[in-house]
Amino acid sequence: MSKPLIEFYWDPASPFTYLAATQIGALAADCGATLAWKPFVLGKAFEATGNRPPVSVPAKGQHLFKDLKRWATFYSVPFQFPKSFPVNSILPERAAIAADKAGQGAEFALAIMRAHWGEGRDISQPEEVKAVSASLGLDGDAILAATQDPAVKEALKANTEEAIKRGTFGAPTFFVGGEMFWGNDRLELLRAFLKGRLAA
Amino acid sequence: MSKPLIEFYWDPASPFTYLAATQIGALAADCGATLAWKPFVLGKAFEATGNRPPVSVPAKGQHLFKDLKRWATFYSVPFQFPKSFPVNSILPERAAIAADKAGQGAEFALAIMRAHWGEGRDISQPEEVKAVSASLGLDGDAILAATQDPAVKEALKANTEEAIKRGTFGAPTFFVGGEMFWGNDRLELLRAFLKGRLAA
Repeated sequence: MSKPLIEFYWDPASPFTYLAATQIGALAADCGATLAWKPFVLGKAFEATGNRPPVSVPAKGQHLFKDLKRWATFYSVPFQFPKSFPVNSILPERAAIAADKAGQGAEFALAIMRAHWGEGRDISQPEEVKAVSASLGLDGDAILAATQDPAVKEALKANTEEAIKRGTFGAPTFFVGGEMFWGNDRLELLRAFLKGRLAA
Repeated sequence: MSKPLIEFYWDPASPFTYLAATQIGALAADCGATLAWKPFVLGKAFEATGNRPPVSVPAKGQHLFKDLKRWATFYSVPFQFPKSFPVNSILPERAAIAADKAGQGAEFALAIMRAHWGEGRDISQPEEVKAVSASLGLDGDAILAATQDPAVKEALKANTEEAIKRGTFGAPTFFVGGEMFWGNDRLELLRAFLKGRLAA
């Protein structure tokens, strides 16, 4: 039997996506699944579906930081709310596409989200994208140059359109075939599904 | 050391509240906590905070039923989407206040939510409230009569105002002292908090 594939639509602007990203590798290994990291533009999914980020409701926004800190403690991962929130994540997402072509898509995804949500760095800035690339042994200048490549821009658009077409309205969103799982807080349902403990 | 108290604000109109209600008793026991079941009017918390139910975003609404079914399977509890959704839950909530005065608040809460979300019954109807009351050995006519008691009406209003004042914007919402936990999907964070594994 072939391994199941988890497709992970991620946008580094989303804190819950960072939290899920710190866990999904171990979950996939635990379930014998392979993992495809697919950067997409969350804002476009909000636009397409009329969904809104949780901070758009003030009482929710006030609770959000405490909730995120709790998850980070629960997972034992670093967390801080970046001054640059909400960040424009188009540049690092294009860079992720370029890093993926260089064989380090997953590593870049994790590193760019850790830079933003773990260390509070403004990942909309070219120098940060370059530094994260360099930390993985990638050529930072080449990655930055590739973000202007029409094929790279097109690949990010295509991921976004694909995600929306499949029903994505938020992030993180995971697919196993036609089965969609939305939210860091659905990882245990995803695990149960992959282990055959949930009906399809 | 005295036992920690979990205050559980619940409204039977909310499916995630039903799901959480099926788990919270065992969680409280596991954590050595006591549990106070507090009916409140979720719609008022939505009004007060500008929050909206998930079904207000069509793509979310389409996903909701699958998500709820998965949780029900995960918890091994019955689930169906009632024809009477969204139900007016004022009558059963007042009945829950009356049942609490008769010493069966928790039992009534669980039974009325199971009738609605497990069996699809329209709990806005007096005969259903009466039947649920009778199933617990309560006097159904007395419970129905008590729903018109100004003190009972006032108690439900007071719970609702208290919940909103404390920051509630959705359901289920749990408090341990000043610490708020929102959502069926935060039960494991609540458990970790009660076991001292999360910073306050």
